[in-house]
Amino acid sequence: AFEHRESSQKSSVTGAVLGKLDCWSHYHVATIVVWDEEGFQGRRHEFTAECPSVLELGFETVRSLKVLSGAWVGFEHAGFQGQQYVLERGEYPSWDAWSGNTSYPAERLTSFRPVACANHRDSRLTIFEQENFLGRKGELSDDYPSLQAMGWDGNEVGSFHVHSGAWVCSQFPGYRGFQYVLECDHHSGDYKHFREWGSHAQTFQVQSIRRIQQ
Amino acid sequence: AFEHRESSQKSSVTGAVLGKLDCWSHYHVATIVVWDEEGFQGRRHEFTAECPSVLELGFETVRSLKVLSGAWVGFEHAGFQGQQYVLERGEYPSWDAWSGNTSYPAERLTSFRPVACANHRDSRLTIFEQENFLGRKGELSDDYPSLQAMGWDGNEVGSFHVHSGAWVCSQFPGYRGFQYVLECDHHSGDYKHFREWGSHAQTFQVQSIRRIQQ
Repeated sequence: AFEHRESSQKSSVTGAVLGKLDCWSHYHVATIVVWDEEGFQGRRHEFTAECPSVLELGFETVRSLKVLSGAWVGFEHAGFQGQQYVLERGEYPSWDAWSGNTSYPAERLTSFRPVACANHRDSRLTIFEQENFLGRKGELSDDYPSLQAMGWDGNEVGSFHVHSGAWVCSQFPGYRGFQYVLECDHHSGDYKHFREWGSHAQTFQVQSIRRIQQ
Repeated sequence: AFEHRESSQKSSVTGAVLGKLDCWSHYHVATIVVWDEEGFQGRRHEFTAECPSVLELGFETVRSLKVLSGAWVGFEHAGFQGQQYVLERGEYPSWDAWSGNTSYPAERLTSFRPVACANHRDSRLTIFEQENFLGRKGELSDDYPSLQAMGWDGNEVGSFHVHSGAWVCSQFPGYRGFQYVLECDHHSGDYKHFREWGSHAQTFQVQSIRRIQQ
């Protein structure tokens, strides 16, 4: 669905000829670079595996980062605890580039790890009205910025089962507010209560869900 | 792809039997309800067409809202100017539910209008490396939380042509930061410079793009 082409319908072109590009073209392992100052300044560290605490690097927190390959999830606290931030490939010059949550006072990103099973092309998730996989359910294999617009009643999801891929669900429509990562290879893909989808989750409120892109 | 079913694979079920629901099932026109206090409190107004200024209602600003049907775009200033906020169906109890941009000091939503041509199933967009539809290009018909992960070089898009549907592009990966709405029935779908995709746009920086859901 996504291609670079050599010519424009609208005008002549000076750009180079590019074939169809694939993800993972430059890096075959997940790679993230973090800095302890905003705007990619200060001390720099590159990671290809999980980091349980940047405090051990002498960082107070991560203040900017670039994801070079793979998909990652950042956490507010050490040991993969607290608020979650999905980090897909691209440049994040400051805290507000990954947070998207304006009401939360902590500006910290202290630990991070790769999302192993993200698969943008083959992701399947079941959502349930009630906890413990009870009540009405919905089958998802696409991105939904508004669950209500797809016919889901109310602003809550009671439980999730991830059949394949990795997903991120969000408190508000349009992928805003608190984020929770759901992975097929964690808990066997079962998330039966909000306590299981994040240590910072206080309610069942979920209004948007999408696949994580790797 | 999205259905309510009567039974759960995991357990017996008490929920009612529901057939496949469609959007627009309850409302056949776009409908938004706005309040002048957070948490759906204070004065309340319901709209089924554009509102160029809530100041004329005696509101200082909108402080909470619910989209009952359709897709809407809210604007920071009166007359559809300033920062843009895509508003899909769901509940937005406070400013941070629709903003998702923590670095911007203004907490205002003063005007809004329906997004007429949103079509989640049939949306097609061409992105160009340079302004005026020049340079390399990419054809999109799906949501891309990271353009770089799909092979797009760099963190900028120079110009857009919307063939069908309505789209929202964002400054940072994962649909964070400044948002810009792109519609097939505005400017004939042509956005040839960042000045044309938003009065608050200062750069070509665009790292994620998705369809708007109605």
